[in-house]
Amino acid sequence: MLVVQKYGGTSVRDVQRIQNVARRAIEYKKRGMDVIVVVSAMSGETDRLLNLAHDIAKFPDLREVDVLISTGEQVTSALLAITLLEMGHKAISLLADQIRIVSDSNYGFARIASVEEQAIRAKLTEGNIIIVPGFQGVDEGGNITTLGRGGSDTTAVALAAGLKADVCEIYTDVDGVYTTDPNICEKARRLDKISYDEMLEMASLGAKVLQIRSVELAQKYNVPILVKSSLVEGEGTLVCKEETVMMEKVVISGITYNKNEAKITVNRVPDQPGIASKIFTALSDANIVVDMIVQNVSHDGFNDITFTVLKADAKKAFKITDELGTSMGAKVAIDEDMAKVSIVGLGMRSHSGVASKMFTVLSAEGINIELISTSEIKISCVIESKYGELAVRALHNNFGLDAEDVAEET
Amino acid sequence: MLVVQKYGGTSVRDVQRIQNVARRAIEYKKRGMDVIVVVSAMSGETDRLLNLAHDIAKFPDLREVDVLISTGEQVTSALLAITLLEMGHKAISLLADQIRIVSDSNYGFARIASVEEQAIRAKLTEGNIIIVPGFQGVDEGGNITTLGRGGSDTTAVALAAGLKADVCEIYTDVDGVYTTDPNICEKARRLDKISYDEMLEMASLGAKVLQIRSVELAQKYNVPILVKSSLVEGEGTLVCKEETVMMEKVVISGITYNKNEAKITVNRVPDQPGIASKIFTALSDANIVVDMIVQNVSHDGFNDITFTVLKADAKKAFKITDELGTSMGAKVAIDEDMAKVSIVGLGMRSHSGVASKMFTVLSAEGINIELISTSEIKISCVIESKYGELAVRALHNNFGLDAEDVAEET
Repeated sequence: MLVVQKYGGTSVRDVQRIQNVARRAIEYKKRGMDVIVVVSAMSGETDRLLNLAHDIAKFPDLREVDVLISTGEQVTSALLAITLLEMGHKAISLLADQIRIVSDSNYGFARIASVEEQAIRAKLTEGNIIIVPGFQGVDEGGNITTLGRGGSDTTAVALAAGLKADVCEIYTDVDGVYTTDPNICEKARRLDKISYDEMLEMASLGAKVLQIRSVELAQKYNVPILVKSSLVEGEGTLVCKEETVMMEKVVISGITYNKNEAKITVNRVPDQPGIASKIFTALSDANIVVDMIVQNVSHDGFNDITFTVLKADAKKAFKITDELGTSMGAKVAIDEDMAKVSIVGLGMRSHSGVASKMFTVLSAEGINIELISTSEIKISCVIESKYGELAVRALHNNFGLDAEDVAEET
Repeated sequence: MLVVQKYGGTSVRDVQRIQNVARRAIEYKKRGMDVIVVVSAMSGETDRLLNLAHDIAKFPDLREVDVLISTGEQVTSALLAITLLEMGHKAISLLADQIRIVSDSNYGFARIASVEEQAIRAKLTEGNIIIVPGFQGVDEGGNITTLGRGGSDTTAVALAAGLKADVCEIYTDVDGVYTTDPNICEKARRLDKISYDEMLEMASLGAKVLQIRSVELAQKYNVPILVKSSLVEGEGTLVCKEETVMMEKVVISGITYNKNEAKITVNRVPDQPGIASKIFTALSDANIVVDMIVQNVSHDGFNDITFTVLKADAKKAFKITDELGTSMGAKVAIDEDMAKVSIVGLGMRSHSGVASKMFTVLSAEGINIELISTSEIKISCVIESKYGELAVRALHNNFGLDAEDVAEET
């Protein structure tokens, strides 16, 4: 049996925590498992290195930034290997170019293309615990690359996929994936299982537990991911394929919430091809990420287009849209105090009435819905931000997610 | 024309100094030279990393320590490349495994076996300034190695040798090699030139400007080394082959001084084979470095053996020697307050009377010589440590090394 364990920056932030990581790896090894440990940089280290680069240049060269920041994970890897060896266990650190974890050459955001098995297998066979620095790869030309923030998750899943590991354990500072943010809803509950698709919708909507790409990769290669706390014992949350989750027959798995949204409406846009393209190209050129886009059927040859952006981008987005819209004879309006509440669940595919129930719950609380957008397993509503937390609690309760309600189901 | 420049830790300790290094490299490039820059870790960084390892283990695994501490030079390399690129110059960092600087697998003290030209040549042809982290290599198995303290000097010389550079410039915090320690003798003078052999004798005797191995390597491949200050402009000191130095007809190049010596004398050792071997094997097994060893012709079947060790090792060395010596019927004595003064110079090969002049100078100052040891280009005297500095000044003056005396000669 082969397990890949990944530890984030807070889990390796000092010698004591690194020793905890070592003890757990040894414990697994003693239970007869082969163990590969993927580590992040000690917390704060990547930022420290980036600050050095930014002291020199506003836009430092991307290849060299990767040479720079990849050292953070290398340091942790060596320290963990030293710790394991000091504890009397065989261990060896292997860097991306030693394993070969081959990526493309997109510095700072590289994607893993392949993972070679040979070097790791040889060292596992010798009885070693293998330590791998997360977040880094090597391109075909031998240049160091990094995989973007949270990239260590992707390293772990890629190794688990490449070596056909039985499970990929992601240790972090929370003890699993929750039905919603416990800071907003005290009845939020840890999920035992969640499907890849649900996790992708949860992650992209703000439940930042796993890097999205790592979940996509896990889904593609069917690698079960177990999200656990490195600080307290617990079962964690298993992110796995749909069939495994569906046996539990829960309609909604979780509720996500983002209160930093701004809504921009373009009223009475002429219904001609290319208008939407013009607006969203201009926003994209300005590096503004547009979240929801809603356009209704046209009336009298005119459309209303509404979209949301992050509050931080709101003023800039409004300026661009207003100039373009006005030149086309449209009226552009902005509302900066919006929140987006979404329910996510595989069950809504087969259960009818989920959407109407959501609208009814919000209505019963006197909350007006400004925008609605749906995907196969997600329904999102944009509401006034002052109602955001109330909406989360009401939905959590009414969809049977509160801790007491589900105790017997799991 | 190709130049290799090496900068030590204090020369790259912050962004400002790294920018100075970049400016000099660009200046050379603009004069039409190809430039390779070898950098050390920012000052304090190697110790910071080693302390992390020593927080975990008293004797941390050597392979993993090299993985750990090699990151220091990697960080500086990336920062310098970022700086050069920000200044509008083509530049690229190349790590030991990317170039390939192949070493043996003697972690922590690896020796360079070969340097491949191809990768560097290709990048030089594209107009790049090449940045190479000093101190590190890669063994045949692809493992990271380090070359020991001061190893960046060796990296620079090895690159200069491998690529047949015209000169290897070592930038440090002193402006060259001096006739003696300026802290002891204010008339100490910077040498314009010194031969490899003299430099080796100077370095091993305490004038710590260059790693000894880098000088040996430079001599083997006839690479001229120019030692310069990174902080002030100046001519520096050229370390080069004997023929070039001899043209200047200076008898003595410098005077070195070590005040932390202890002298141990074993009186009336039976003159039998294997006795000296027994004593020095025991000391070596205890990791005690023995410096000078003097044994005179025997009288009446007995020998006197005298040797010196570092003051720090004196008590331990005495205990070992005393036990062994007593068991053989010898009498062992120790004197912990000794200093060693040496004169170094190619000229003494062809000039007679150098030794007698040294003894006369010391005698004139009322200084008793306890031990004498000579090599081809060096004469060392052990004296009471209280006379050490006086001896240096007297010899410096009498051998014509004082700043005024030689002004017209150079």
